[in-house]
Amino acid sequence: MIIMNSEASKEEIDNVVKEIKRFGLKADVSRGEFRTVIGLIGDERKADFSHLATLPGVKEAFPVESPYKLISREYSRRFDEAEERREITVGNVTIGGEGLVIIAGPCTVESKAQLFRIAEEVKKAGAHILRGGIFKPRSSVHSFQGLGGNGREEAEEALRWLHEAGQKFEMPVVTEVRGEAQVDLVANYADIMQIGARNMYNQDLLARVARVDKPILFKRHFGAGIDEFLSFAEYMAAEGNKDIILCERGILPLGKGKNYTRYTFDLSAIPAIQKEAYLPVIADPSHATGRQDLIFNMSCAAVAAGACGLMIEAHYNPSEAMVDGMQTITPQELKEIISACHKIHKLIAKRHREKVLVA
Amino acid sequence: MIIMNSEASKEEIDNVVKEIKRFGLKADVSRGEFRTVIGLIGDERKADFSHLATLPGVKEAFPVESPYKLISREYSRRFDEAEERREITVGNVTIGGEGLVIIAGPCTVESKAQLFRIAEEVKKAGAHILRGGIFKPRSSVHSFQGLGGNGREEAEEALRWLHEAGQKFEMPVVTEVRGEAQVDLVANYADIMQIGARNMYNQDLLARVARVDKPILFKRHFGAGIDEFLSFAEYMAAEGNKDIILCERGILPLGKGKNYTRYTFDLSAIPAIQKEAYLPVIADPSHATGRQDLIFNMSCAAVAAGACGLMIEAHYNPSEAMVDGMQTITPQELKEIISACHKIHKLIAKRHREKVLVA
Amino acid sequence: MIIMNSEASKEEIDNVVKEIKRFGLKADVSRGEFRTVIGLIGDERKADFSHLATLPGVKEAFPVESPYKLISREYSRRFDEAEERREITVGNVTIGGEGLVIIAGPCTVESKAQLFRIAEEVKKAGAHILRGGIFKPRSSVHSFQGLGGNGREEAEEALRWLHEAGQKFEMPVVTEVRGEAQVDLVANYADIMQIGARNMYNQDLLARVARVDKPILFKRHFGAGIDEFLSFAEYMAAEGNKDIILCERGILPLGKGKNYTRYTFDLSAIPAIQKEAYLPVIADPSHATGRQDLIFNMSCAAVAAGACGLMIEAHYNPSEAMVDGMQTITPQELKEIISACHKIHKLIAKRHREKVLVA
Amino acid sequence: MIIMNSEASKEEIDNVVKEIKRFGLKADVSRGEFRTVIGLIGDERKADFSHLATLPGVKEAFPVESPYKLISREYSRRFDEAEERREITVGNVTIGGEGLVIIAGPCTVESKAQLFRIAEEVKKAGAHILRGGIFKPRSSVHSFQGLGGNGREEAEEALRWLHEAGQKFEMPVVTEVRGEAQVDLVANYADIMQIGARNMYNQDLLARVARVDKPILFKRHFGAGIDEFLSFAEYMAAEGNKDIILCERGILPLGKGKNYTRYTFDLSAIPAIQKEAYLPVIADPSHATGRQDLIFNMSCAAVAAGACGLMIEAHYNPSEAMVDGMQTITPQELKEIISACHKIHKLIAKRHREKVLVA
Repeated sequence: MIIMNSEASKEEIDNVVKEIKRFGLKADVSRGEFRTVIGLIGDERKADFSHLATLPGVKEAFPVESPYKLISREYSRRFDEAEERREITVGNVTIGGEGLVIIAGPCTVESKAQLFRIAEEVKKAGAHILRGGIFKPRSSVHSFQGLGGNGREEAEEALRWLHEAGQKFEMPVVTEVRGEAQVDLVANYADIMQIGARNMYNQDLLARVARVDKPILFKRHFGAGIDEFLSFAEYMAAEGNKDIILCERGILPLGKGKNYTRYTFDLSAIPAIQKEAYLPVIADPSHATGRQDLIFNMSCAAVAAGACGLMIEAHYNPSEAMVDGMQTITPQELKEIISACHKIHKLIAKRHREKVLVA
Repeated sequence: MIIMNSEASKEEIDNVVKEIKRFGLKADVSRGEFRTVIGLIGDERKADFSHLATLPGVKEAFPVESPYKLISREYSRRFDEAEERREITVGNVTIGGEGLVIIAGPCTVESKAQLFRIAEEVKKAGAHILRGGIFKPRSSVHSFQGLGGNGREEAEEALRWLHEAGQKFEMPVVTEVRGEAQVDLVANYADIMQIGARNMYNQDLLARVARVDKPILFKRHFGAGIDEFLSFAEYMAAEGNKDIILCERGILPLGKGKNYTRYTFDLSAIPAIQKEAYLPVIADPSHATGRQDLIFNMSCAAVAAGACGLMIEAHYNPSEAMVDGMQTITPQELKEIISACHKIHKLIAKRHREKVLVA
Repeated sequence: MIIMNSEASKEEIDNVVKEIKRFGLKADVSRGEFRTVIGLIGDERKADFSHLATLPGVKEAFPVESPYKLISREYSRRFDEAEERREITVGNVTIGGEGLVIIAGPCTVESKAQLFRIAEEVKKAGAHILRGGIFKPRSSVHSFQGLGGNGREEAEEALRWLHEAGQKFEMPVVTEVRGEAQVDLVANYADIMQIGARNMYNQDLLARVARVDKPILFKRHFGAGIDEFLSFAEYMAAEGNKDIILCERGILPLGKGKNYTRYTFDLSAIPAIQKEAYLPVIADPSHATGRQDLIFNMSCAAVAAGACGLMIEAHYNPSEAMVDGMQTITPQELKEIISACHKIHKLIAKRHREKVLVA
Repeated sequence: MIIMNSEASKEEIDNVVKEIKRFGLKADVSRGEFRTVIGLIGDERKADFSHLATLPGVKEAFPVESPYKLISREYSRRFDEAEERREITVGNVTIGGEGLVIIAGPCTVESKAQLFRIAEEVKKAGAHILRGGIFKPRSSVHSFQGLGGNGREEAEEALRWLHEAGQKFEMPVVTEVRGEAQVDLVANYADIMQIGARNMYNQDLLARVARVDKPILFKRHFGAGIDEFLSFAEYMAAEGNKDIILCERGILPLGKGKNYTRYTFDLSAIPAIQKEAYLPVIADPSHATGRQDLIFNMSCAAVAAGACGLMIEAHYNPSEAMVDGMQTITPQELKEIISACHKIHKLIAKRHREKVLVA
């Protein structure tokens, strides 16, 4: 990390970047209100910090051991003491700001009519962002793979519906991009690009998606520790895209006996991550629990734990949903959840900020 | 399970119990407002249900596969449709009732002065029950084992302090009983007998403690699935003691990389357990997270998830605590947590009841 | 699954395939010595089995619930009672046959000289196949990513070295393909395409690699159950490529305390998988243990458990290796391991076949 | 740890022990061929090492951080460079010596006839020690708890049978002691006292059993890391009993999907433990896999991994066994396993010693 003097000139900054590149590294330049900080991207052992420290305009130069540094709270504080949490604005919604953000919609887009009806109902229930799966990652090649599985034409048609539903009901839209070959196509229609839990370790996809100039909803793999989750988010930051929304969606349950929930919802991870990184963290109670009857409680719990948003699967008739009906709730239930969650979000805001965000 | 006719006589019930014993089994007789239900304790394959079904006064007789049946919601509904949750009253406190119950105190009793000062301060902060460890389970034989490790005399003295502190500040007291040889001693002083996570599988201790006529605070082992947790609670119910307070205190974290929390706080287990069993469920954010800075958020989250009580370690000077200082909060912080948690408890009560307790 | 009569004609088989396609499914035709079996690929609920059963030449038609069916032992037995294990021949080596196959080489290709020296030495030690990482999956974007991380030209040069080393020392070569964009490039030089543990769930990469007409070395993700591992192998079989070598390389360790091995080497999975699927299973003790001093014992143990091959990282000077030196052994140690393992392989062969392969 | 001069007198040693006690600690005195080493038991922070270092006869005095020190390889090397592995002799059998030791017998003693027939048959198959469960730990209070569950009289009768069978067929016998109240009774009949996996954390039972002057077979809990396993073994060493046979019997499987084995057999733990502690390590493939068809392979694998013994459940008619029939093999199968395992044991002995035991 290179910390520049507060009065460092543009030329001095450019020169530092040039020197960093000479070592075979890339540079991440962050301009704060009072000073500029430059992060090194790549293997820092290649850099000569005693040399970098002598360059004009440089105040301090030192290596950072952590595998996640560009997204770390420590880094952000160097250039902007006020940055507690990155605010990501997309359309009329800000994620990571004061308000709680609700992402809702069907697990899977099945038809235009289904999508539009759900979009309308979740909007009325208080949702801010519309979700809808088109390229579905599935455990079995023999299961329905979403409309994205029916060839490029159907995939694009479904993406177009999603885009139109977002326009009509004034919600930005998010959908998963599952493979490198789908990135451009999805980028044409989605406002937020989702990387699913199973692709968390797919560093080639991460880098590819990050280079699209859109926010990314990044889900934690169910086998990933917090440090791995953040280290892979760093792959995207290293491509210059820090508009990353982290999403806790459940980790591997204990291995013995019957599973009462689909995954273990790791809610402590939410404040624990917030202490490490300044990125917004949301939670997905639908996939974490896999149980419709637990969504109310676990949504409230996630918000109490400090989530700045929720991602919830909803359908006017859950039992009709082709995928994940067991964990899908009705718009009416969604409305009640949103109402309780906003209250809890306000209730904990002050203390949460003191204990976690600025501590 | 034997369901008696609503007008079954005491003789008829006694006769059924006698017949059950003839099969080498024990009987659990539960009298509800409208009917009596008799649970079989032991290996039901030994019983001849077609014979039991023909006894006078018997309405239905059938085997129950589940390893936890006496504590199951299904069983309680048979004899008392109104029983949503077992209410356990100890002194001036009811656990499992309308109100949220706070158990607080030092991790470990170190001296009379320390205990009394903490007792006074947590009482003022709003705690209802006083905790304090005397027989401490420790990973290392070379660590401080609590005053219980210094011989019977010191152990009894510490227990006496605990009892006196409870009397003075009008709080029932709870402390752990770690081995069979300590049961009688602890029972002389504690209002609630705690069985620690590491002893969850210790069926001989469970049976021994259950035979003491006191409520039991029963902690889930960090490697135990929900079905195992309930199956071992059943060992106590089978001894005739159903005053069991279940406590979620964290399960094994994912195995790779740095652990950001001591355990994974399995909050979804709270409503999941409540759907299975009618026993009250509390949560222990101190041991689950092992981090003082996360206690506020995770206490709120546990209550939002449906916990009817919290167990929190507090100390006037956490850094001075001989054990677990890292996870200990001050009475001032406790007060703020209690205040927020009561509000959340009220906020979710109605929906929680509908979705989880009576669903 | 459609089982044809033994005398079914080619026309009848083609007709069944056509009918299967009419239901929107794909067909996998397996011709055994005595009969032909046709597997349905996709959501079998779309198919009308009562209709398929009436087609000329069809003996039986029924749905298979399992997410892995094309690779299942049950399926292979239908068309070829003798097929106990798929033999995959590449160059002068047969994987899954009578002999134990050793894959060895450096973790990462660092230079032509390093690669050639190691290739020569592992060949002398008794290795059959040469490994060498070029596109390295790494937890941190700030770590060395292999020569594949230095741009297409260096990547291709390294691949060329690998190919040449294979030619010179008469060993087929295997290297990892990490992203979809690298598939064609790697396919030009590698004899076996490796899909790394982190990409096990990357179904788009799997399908893309399967369409290359080369054997695939497929590593189990450290968070994947056996059924998931096999279900994702099925993604490749569904593309028509069943030359899949399954590799056990360690799963998540228990989450508490210090890890004494990098992962938990799940050796019971080896025979357990062999009872389910007819694909060859090898083991990677280097990544599983992460400890040079345990490679001897754990290689022997893997072979005793039934592995038909081993993948081991070797280097003439392990402490010099840029990646994973801690788990790398010398060619001299490799030689001793190979010698012991061949003996164990022979020792257990007969009983292993009776208990696991044909049971 | 206090290392005495080689010529230290008995008085000097006694004096050091006295001084250690003055600090409120206990002392473990180990006399090697060349020197005496004294381990401190308890919280070493209480001791003043600079004072201890000045006592007559003391060569070195320093604290040891590890929670397991009395059983550590480091400690044993200080007083006896030759001690690679503790040899525990019981009757005509030495565990931890040159030979592989086989413990076999029924899961549960059901009758005298059943026990004697199995004892005879496993003896003929090559077993050295007879096992048989009487006090059975069970997940469900409603399951058969072994003859120990039928009251003291039946328990003692079953213990007597076990003792007699051992006498008759010249095998030492091992059986589990499940609770503190059973220790004296079991000690009257068993040659080796078994502490089951579920009681691994039961420090009160551990201390109680250690005070009986008999070897202990100590099973790892399925949720315990290696450091925990050794730390709890230290509880017994601290009571002066180091005749501890460690047993790996499987850890929690991964949490998703179907379990193909009952637990994950953590074979890498065997050499990993041997590098830490000098105690003998055996393995229990029956409980680890829960599958009769995998016992052959996994027994061989455990021995290849370095186990110096195996514990295997056998029955003349496995399907008749009241408990764990699924994992029980016949004496004929046992014989074949023993034969293969002895060969593997010899095959790996030299290298295992070099890489693990004396490295």
